[in-house]
Amino acid sequence: MNEIKTKPIHSFMSTQAYRSEIPFHLLFIHPQVEYRDTECRINGEYSVPCLRQDEQVWLPFSFVHKYFEIFGEFTQQTPGGSERFDLWHSTSKVYKPKTNYDPRGVFLFFDNYNVEVRDRVMCVSADEGVPISTQWDSSGYYYPTQVAQFGLAHYSKNLTQPKVMRKVLEDGGDTSKTTWLVSDSSFAKREKYGSSKVLIFAGRVHAPVSSDMAYLDVNITLASNSSLWVAIEQKHQPTRRMHYVCGETRPIWTDGRDCFYGMGHCGQWNRLSRDLALDLQKAIRVSKRPRNLRVVAIGLEGSGRLDDLSLSNGSDHDALFWAAARWFVRHQSSDGGWPIPARRRLVAGMSILAPGWLSAMAQGHAASLLSRAYHRSGDPQYLEAAEKGLAPFRSPSAKGGVRASLWGHTWFEEYPTTPPSLVLNGFIYALLGLHDLRMIGNSKNASTLYSEGIESLRALLPVYDTGSASVYDLRHVTLGSAPNVARWDYHATHVNQLLMLATIEPQVELFKRTAMRWADYMLGHRAAHN
Amino acid sequence: MNEIKTKPIHSFMSTQAYRSEIPFHLLFIHPQVEYRDTECRINGEYSVPCLRQDEQVWLPFSFVHKYFEIFGEFTQQTPGGSERFDLWHSTSKVYKPKTNYDPRGVFLFFDNYNVEVRDRVMCVSADEGVPISTQWDSSGYYYPTQVAQFGLAHYSKNLTQPKVMRKVLEDGGDTSKTTWLVSDSSFAKREKYGSSKVLIFAGRVHAPVSSDMAYLDVNITLASNSSLWVAIEQKHQPTRRMHYVCGETRPIWTDGRDCFYGMGHCGQWNRLSRDLALDLQKAIRVSKRPRNLRVVAIGLEGSGRLDDLSLSNGSDHDALFWAAARWFVRHQSSDGGWPIPARRRLVAGMSILAPGWLSAMAQGHAASLLSRAYHRSGDPQYLEAAEKGLAPFRSPSAKGGVRASLWGHTWFEEYPTTPPSLVLNGFIYALLGLHDLRMIGNSKNASTLYSEGIESLRALLPVYDTGSASVYDLRHVTLGSAPNVARWDYHATHVNQLLMLATIEPQVELFKRTAMRWADYMLGHRAAHN
Repeated sequence: MNEIKTKPIHSFMSTQAYRSEIPFHLLFIHPQVEYRDTECRINGEYSVPCLRQDEQVWLPFSFVHKYFEIFGEFTQQTPGGSERFDLWHSTSKVYKPKTNYDPRGVFLFFDNYNVEVRDRVMCVSADEGVPISTQWDSSGYYYPTQVAQFGLAHYSKNLTQPKVMRKVLEDGGDTSKTTWLVSDSSFAKREKYGSSKVLIFAGRVHAPVSSDMAYLDVNITLASNSSLWVAIEQKHQPTRRMHYVCGETRPIWTDGRDCFYGMGHCGQWNRLSRDLALDLQKAIRVSKRPRNLRVVAIGLEGSGRLDDLSLSNGSDHDALFWAAARWFVRHQSSDGGWPIPARRRLVAGMSILAPGWLSAMAQGHAASLLSRAYHRSGDPQYLEAAEKGLAPFRSPSAKGGVRASLWGHTWFEEYPTTPPSLVLNGFIYALLGLHDLRMIGNSKNASTLYSEGIESLRALLPVYDTGSASVYDLRHVTLGSAPNVARWDYHATHVNQLLMLATIEPQVELFKRTAMRWADYMLGHRAAHN
Repeated sequence: MNEIKTKPIHSFMSTQAYRSEIPFHLLFIHPQVEYRDTECRINGEYSVPCLRQDEQVWLPFSFVHKYFEIFGEFTQQTPGGSERFDLWHSTSKVYKPKTNYDPRGVFLFFDNYNVEVRDRVMCVSADEGVPISTQWDSSGYYYPTQVAQFGLAHYSKNLTQPKVMRKVLEDGGDTSKTTWLVSDSSFAKREKYGSSKVLIFAGRVHAPVSSDMAYLDVNITLASNSSLWVAIEQKHQPTRRMHYVCGETRPIWTDGRDCFYGMGHCGQWNRLSRDLALDLQKAIRVSKRPRNLRVVAIGLEGSGRLDDLSLSNGSDHDALFWAAARWFVRHQSSDGGWPIPARRRLVAGMSILAPGWLSAMAQGHAASLLSRAYHRSGDPQYLEAAEKGLAPFRSPSAKGGVRASLWGHTWFEEYPTTPPSLVLNGFIYALLGLHDLRMIGNSKNASTLYSEGIESLRALLPVYDTGSASVYDLRHVTLGSAPNVARWDYHATHVNQLLMLATIEPQVELFKRTAMRWADYMLGHRAAHN
């Protein structure tokens, strides 16, 4: 940028002005002349007010921001220091892989993800232990893609985040120091249960607690309509109670200062692992995560048994991962799919996906999640579910599968529309799932599908390149419409995925080369024109 | 743009400042504070000096110009009136078709073209009567694409431009009023030649003339080393002589104030139709067309005959068109091609085109030109040449033809590289040539190729769409490189071609819809991101 000459802008009252014959009091109006207002006419369509200094014109950032969609903000370089204005072409983040991708390790950059805080998550179900989506149906539904991302994020965090501090409140043993206060005709006592010791209760019991550790874990079995509750204090806020209620299928509701999570039909032992701040946030519907919580009491109502009741200062990522893995084993259809119960309309001109549709992204994520569950547990049910989950990759979209093609190249469809939509990020996630399964499960089927997909990506990846951004899908090709340019966070996902894929397929130079160029687009570096 | 608030910029010496306790002489520095200089940091990479007024930031146009490649200039709305600053996203021009495309009419928007003035044209040959290109070989060569464009431009201008004024100086008849001055042992006399009357001369003869009409036309036959010359006056310039020399194969050269054009081996009758200002411009190599020329003498040296010598105030477009049409009949190879003698390297990674390569654009343009020549003359030799020119469309690039394919779709290559380059504008020009021939020549072969090409364009056109521009070719697909974004004049050509094609194929809505959206890109209206 050498061509932009820095002129001293405060050249007020130049020597020349002093020497002139202009009356003294007018001299001081001179500096105004330096920056005159000027009409800027934009493509002959409309005008914006500009400044002019000799032949240099200055455009208002408010215009540049809107016209080119670039971002800007004042930042202070040192506390109390002078401000500068930072312009950003994109505000999204590229994660450069530190190591080669490992199917047994962190899933991409998901250790940075927090799926459950997103607006489109109603709450983490106290029944299934996985998030409920409201993205395409405000009444809430389990969205396999989201459930898998939740599981993969917690799997990844479990590998990268420090161990939490944990305080056991009740383990049924004699060393438990918690004093349970018992109402009339209620009881709570510790007794042997199988090879372990548990707390058994009936009626209304509670224990005063005082802890700023706001993550609750417990193994519990309750009779219908029984519940566990936690009283939470927050500065300047009324004390609220979070109730986890058996026999309730409603996922979440409130009544005054009482917040309720339904645990479903939970006669069995359940692992309840709750982020109380998140549960409170979702219940009272605030945009920011509540801070400085203090657990002041834990109570039980109805009847049941519990064990290993603890508070900690962080999520039990392992427990959340397994909740997701078990969800996938429980909810697989006979055709191998994880059907999505929400109706999905991608864009006018393409078929609407009726409830029950499958997604290659969900199937692929499931393969990533289940492969890791098998790796961790050695339990063949996870591997069997993952392998069975490949069937929709071989079945065309029109027949309920996720397989499409463009110009002879197979595509695995995140949204199996007609005509195909060829969403890029969902396809690459699907490939990673196939890769995980072929590596961990030694799956020949996964390997075949993976190779087929890599060949398609080699052929079609350039079609997603606009020279200054990437497109989210190929609707412009299959519908003949305007290209659906990817917003920067999706673009960054493309870059991150390709950088990671390049560590799996280093001989396909296209992947890394494209990723590097696409990363440059985020700094405003466009491909050259001729 | 309602969000951009117009603040009064000249709010110098606010009431508040007057009321303050600041010493009077410092008051006048206050207005400076309104526009403070501020560092703008661009993507964390480098800084540019900006202005700041409260929370509004002003960016220097010099930066915006370079970063986004938009254009700006001061314009005066009324003579002597105030200036405004016009910003343009693109400076190229869209031609909206006024009527449906007619193969017998104007070729696209070529009535606006002036091929021969371009820098990359050495001159219009006095031998062939068509331009000589220096684009890829500075020694000069006939580039069939350029020759055809020259012919099609003059065909089109012949239909749209007003008739020229013409003054006949010599027709061999008794009414010729030009007085030929004869040197010692020279002669000039009018005599019968066949059914016509001509001027016959030997030695050195000349005639004084005084005319500001600087276009020369003559039918002439000269002995070797004989020449016709024209003396031209221009204000503040020495008088120069333009010599048209028989027996000379050098196309153009100068010697002091004498400029020479070789007419080749011209024992036959020649039609010499010269734009003297252009000839002068090319000879003395100036960037601007010489103006205010005056022809002050015309002379003859050697021996020969001439007829219909005239000066006019505009080109004889018809003669120039026929020169091009005849060139194509004369220079066709036995395989139907018009080989290009210059070596062409499109881009690293693609095969270099060795001298003798064919171009679908040249072949298509030839079809457009020759079809029109047949339409005008009824002479079958033109139609035969056009039909024969289809052969390379059926022959693959690797075998010397112009046929390629991508993903099963046939492409006619402007540059028949390996891998294919799939240049868009050249392909559409080829389609128009095929259309012209199928319509005028009723050619079944052209019709088949045209339909095949239209299907390819329907399939692949969206791949050229970046959402904010178009790409010139598909090198990014076949090489895996960065997209080759079309500069705005090529982009405008794409728009103009598609708008015209849409009048031929109105049922293919894609063509018009794409053209309209691409025209919008030239005003900075991008496709939406998700």
